[in-house]
Amino acid sequence: MTVSEIAKEANSAALILAHLSTELKNQALNEMANALEANCSAILAANQKDLEFANKEGIAKPLIARLTLNEDKIRGMAQGIRSVVALPDPSGVRKSAMELDKDLTLYQVSCPIGVIGAIFESRPDAVPQISSLCLKSGNAVILKGGREAQNSNKVIVNLLQEGIKKVNGVPETAVQMIETREEVQDMLKEEKNINLIVPRGSNEFVKYIQDNTKIPVLGHSEGICHNYIDNEADIEKALRIALDSKLQYPAACNAMENLLVHQEIASKIIPQLIQKFEEKGVSLLGCEKTREIAANLPIASESEWDEEYNDLKLSVKIVEDIDEAISFINCHGSGHTDTIITENSETAEKFMDGVNSASVMCNASTRFADGFRYGLGAEIGISTNKTHARGPVGLEGLVIYKYRVYGNGQIVSDYSGENARSFTHKPV
Amino acid sequence: MTVSEIAKEANSAALILAHLSTELKNQALNEMANALEANCSAILAANQKDLEFANKEGIAKPLIARLTLNEDKIRGMAQGIRSVVALPDPSGVRKSAMELDKDLTLYQVSCPIGVIGAIFESRPDAVPQISSLCLKSGNAVILKGGREAQNSNKVIVNLLQEGIKKVNGVPETAVQMIETREEVQDMLKEEKNINLIVPRGSNEFVKYIQDNTKIPVLGHSEGICHNYIDNEADIEKALRIALDSKLQYPAACNAMENLLVHQEIASKIIPQLIQKFEEKGVSLLGCEKTREIAANLPIASESEWDEEYNDLKLSVKIVEDIDEAISFINCHGSGHTDTIITENSETAEKFMDGVNSASVMCNASTRFADGFRYGLGAEIGISTNKTHARGPVGLEGLVIYKYRVYGNGQIVSDYSGENARSFTHKPV
Repeated sequence: MTVSEIAKEANSAALILAHLSTELKNQALNEMANALEANCSAILAANQKDLEFANKEGIAKPLIARLTLNEDKIRGMAQGIRSVVALPDPSGVRKSAMELDKDLTLYQVSCPIGVIGAIFESRPDAVPQISSLCLKSGNAVILKGGREAQNSNKVIVNLLQEGIKKVNGVPETAVQMIETREEVQDMLKEEKNINLIVPRGSNEFVKYIQDNTKIPVLGHSEGICHNYIDNEADIEKALRIALDSKLQYPAACNAMENLLVHQEIASKIIPQLIQKFEEKGVSLLGCEKTREIAANLPIASESEWDEEYNDLKLSVKIVEDIDEAISFINCHGSGHTDTIITENSETAEKFMDGVNSASVMCNASTRFADGFRYGLGAEIGISTNKTHARGPVGLEGLVIYKYRVYGNGQIVSDYSGENARSFTHKPV
Repeated sequence: MTVSEIAKEANSAALILAHLSTELKNQALNEMANALEANCSAILAANQKDLEFANKEGIAKPLIARLTLNEDKIRGMAQGIRSVVALPDPSGVRKSAMELDKDLTLYQVSCPIGVIGAIFESRPDAVPQISSLCLKSGNAVILKGGREAQNSNKVIVNLLQEGIKKVNGVPETAVQMIETREEVQDMLKEEKNINLIVPRGSNEFVKYIQDNTKIPVLGHSEGICHNYIDNEADIEKALRIALDSKLQYPAACNAMENLLVHQEIASKIIPQLIQKFEEKGVSLLGCEKTREIAANLPIASESEWDEEYNDLKLSVKIVEDIDEAISFINCHGSGHTDTIITENSETAEKFMDGVNSASVMCNASTRFADGFRYGLGAEIGISTNKTHARGPVGLEGLVIYKYRVYGNGQIVSDYSGENARSFTHKPV
């Protein structure tokens, strides 16, 4: 099938999925989980092919680790799907109800978006995860995984479809897959049939997607996150949070890249920070003022303040006050996650009001910005968009709403001109 | 100033607006209203220039009527702003709250989107309307009105800015204007500083905007709306609703373009429909089956089913059953507004579940799909998007949310590995 045909199939499936009962969707999800568990050996055989290819190509070890499946990981995938069964259905929820007039009532009810295009890199466990979130919310999905995981992904998608097929009334085309880069190009042109693209991968990759489609994209290309240590910070908390924000997982998008320090506390805390970060092998860069305290730090260039290192590297800047900190973050940050360390709650509020990011925090590590930690149950992605969904996005980000009006023969002419009826506009 | 400079100013203003109190924003809105009322003569003088130009250019009469201002209309503008003062502030609303762990709490709080680019055609009353909605929700706005209203718009924007200036702390750059088509081109490239474009105008115009920017667009290019008269329809209601849907304001986006009739009721109702529509001067087209009942109707071509007439023209089609009606609407409609006329509530539910449109109705005219009638208080536009906001969009469509996390020194390392702490994830 061409991508255009696949997208049309997805669109037809979406129209059916949109009004399936929660029960039927959960049945299909359970069958999907069962199908994976019952076919471990087929999945592992396909995975073996991918691993052989990866080793031949000399792919980096961490990537191979993420690519490698075993029975435990497959059980984990099935468990992941079952945890989505347990989540509340985000579709069909009444968001508001209003009497417009006697016997004329307006409801705003959540509903699926339609067709999701999900593009991700080499982890095969993304396939059941994204598929289950889409199906639970009533969306059809077209998946494109990494080339390295192609055999694994193909078998997994086939098994998910077999699971779905066991439940009468649920279209197996709810989950489909494309495989080549050329197909991705075609998918990005399907604005008629695909309603949202969710890309996961490197900055360059996400940026490429954002720049090459008219379809709305849910994602983030950059994660330039800050800590700001206020003059009224608790030093112990500041050290703990700064180290965790940078080191708990440096490659994550919510890891800290720039550390701002209030000038009044700088000479006290910066030497301790430098010592602790250097113990952990972090390369530090500094602004001019920081170098007055730590002369041996290389100077951070203008462009380095805008860089996502994703690595054991950190730039340190001394700021005059909270206002400079806020301006700096709004200028150099990527609107992802920023935290203030202070014991002054007024200063904290000023920071959290003023910093224009998806997640703003006080006295907590930036690494908390994550769907699981936020209690969303599961995460479809993290968004730095300013519309639709922002920050860690769970099932709620996969629905929109429709208006349903129930009348009894009312017409608009009756509400205009002489003797016009009035609307009551009473919340129900 | 260049558009890029204007956009940067707007961005700076937005950062301030985002955390202004409702009271301060309302003060600024009241001053905006006062400034218009106190300067009627200046507005009318500028409007006179626009009218002279319009008459010289031979602009069509209905357009001139919409362009023409008088004291009443200016008082209406001021009243419109004051009605926005009375609306609840959509920003700063707590949407959810969750304890992640002891002393670690997550809040999801609504906040403005940032900078709105609003592009509209010749009505000068759109200027105070859009400006007040944006300011109330804490967004900065860059306006571009029609060339025909340029003098009027300029004076109005200046007066709005003068009003804003009277309130300490509210940046006058909350409302700015650009004037030329070249500036619109530049505005569409400002994806760094503009977060949402709201275009109002002809289909071609909105389509052009959608196709020529990476900024999210809130709007609709087409309004192809349907009535479906079911075999269990009440004939009187069906006639009333069909006539109103087409005739109450044929140029509106929520006016009906295609009328579907169940085959069992066709021979009974179609002759009555034809008679009534023809009395009102509506040109009717029909499908093959319709022409078996009304041989004199011209046949509707394939492309006419996908056409928004915006005029006294209507295509009539006989369908086999509700399923064909739903498929037809999902295929040929524009996802705007569609209504079923039936006394069978199960059939109604099937229609409202199955039709994938922003507004679905039962026994009511499609013309009800409108922000005022829906009780939204005011309307920024109507959207056929599948993300962010759908249908008539009021103040709620101008906000997004941010996450605010309040901790006490927590770090993510404590929640992993041996002796890991667990999240409590308790709604607060």
